[in-house]
Amino acid sequence: MTLSASANITISAFEWVPDFARGQVRDLTVRWALEEVQVPYHTHLLHAGSARPESYLSWQPFDQVPAYRDNDGEMFESGAILLHLGRQDERLLPADPAARMQAESWLIGAISSIEPVLRPITLMPLFNGDKDWCAPAVASMMPIAERRLEQLARSLGDREWLAGEFSVADIMMAFVLRSFGGQLINDQPSLLAYRERALSRPAFQRALKAQLDDLTGEPPHA
Amino acid sequence: MTLSASANITISAFEWVPDFARGQVRDLTVRWALEEVQVPYHTHLLHAGSARPESYLSWQPFDQVPAYRDNDGEMFESGAILLHLGRQDERLLPADPAARMQAESWLIGAISSIEPVLRPITLMPLFNGDKDWCAPAVASMMPIAERRLEQLARSLGDREWLAGEFSVADIMMAFVLRSFGGQLINDQPSLLAYRERALSRPAFQRALKAQLDDLTGEPPHA
Repeated sequence: MTLSASANITISAFEWVPDFARGQVRDLTVRWALEEVQVPYHTHLLHAGSARPESYLSWQPFDQVPAYRDNDGEMFESGAILLHLGRQDERLLPADPAARMQAESWLIGAISSIEPVLRPITLMPLFNGDKDWCAPAVASMMPIAERRLEQLARSLGDREWLAGEFSVADIMMAFVLRSFGGQLINDQPSLLAYRERALSRPAFQRALKAQLDDLTGEPPHA
Repeated sequence: MTLSASANITISAFEWVPDFARGQVRDLTVRWALEEVQVPYHTHLLHAGSARPESYLSWQPFDQVPAYRDNDGEMFESGAILLHLGRQDERLLPADPAARMQAESWLIGAISSIEPVLRPITLMPLFNGDKDWCAPAVASMMPIAERRLEQLARSLGDREWLAGEFSVADIMMAFVLRSFGGQLINDQPSLLAYRERALSRPAFQRALKAQLDDLTGEPPHA
């Protein structure tokens, strides 16, 4: 089974974001998956610096990006959208049951076991780096983050991708390592190489360009 | 389609955990789903206070619980396992495509948008409550957690469950709110009622008893 343009896919994305968020917003993962299978999509553009219309919350309850719509229905959460796309296209998620179960586990692992231990280490200094409490709080979170990355590296071993062929699990894991890997990932050469292998795929490069190209909006009024 | 005993399901669980983790380990969500559809399962018991055998890491790369096995293959991550079970039984995940897309979105929303903002608020004081930096660090994380719970309450509205009929999305969300809702959830009466509605289901009560009944191991030697 393969996805096609007839699915009539729309995703939400931003037409303006602050500099630190350029190229980092999570619609990137969905764009990447769609670029891998070369399925076109529509964009519903929003302004990150302005209040979204109330109607958007019935599509995306947490006022985040991306929201998703196709001929079958609506979704939110990039992890859920990636699994939904994957189940419609073997190029994104293996059809073999055992391989699929591994890929699904790894996608959830990226958002449930890797991202939560890395994200505060990256974001707390970004937003509270001037506070006395920030450095010790971040330091307290380092051991578990280091351990998880070691476990990830050990489990990846010398394989190219997490679950056999390239899949949406690799899209999500590479996104998480790119956005939140920080300095920690430098201690794991095999993860650096894995991330580079993923990000050098033409589909990622096209997705990144598409996200940046949509940033045509003006900054909010001061 | 319905799940049956012929799936031959095994999950990993603990035979001993520290007091604060009793009734809180994530195999609870998988047990709950299986109790909802009354499908029996085997348990592979581990000791939380002792090093697990190296072989366990090839089943569960992050050395966590639960790992899962059935006739089709192996999985890890409770969120992935719940989706896998749901797709095999309409009592756990709607068959209608639009309803299923909503339920899948909400399950990922529980682990990706709700849990990460609540968990550090609960766990940081548990492990670092004696440190000067803990209170201001936790305070810095409160606004986003409060906002997400408000958004969740608004989106739930006066509905009984997140996506039509009761589903694995409600299992995961109720688990997250039970483990990490802390004091914050008290400001949202509709979420308190939702959590109580979920936790009063007989299947949850059976799952909790089963997890606690498996805690037959001795504490680690001092």
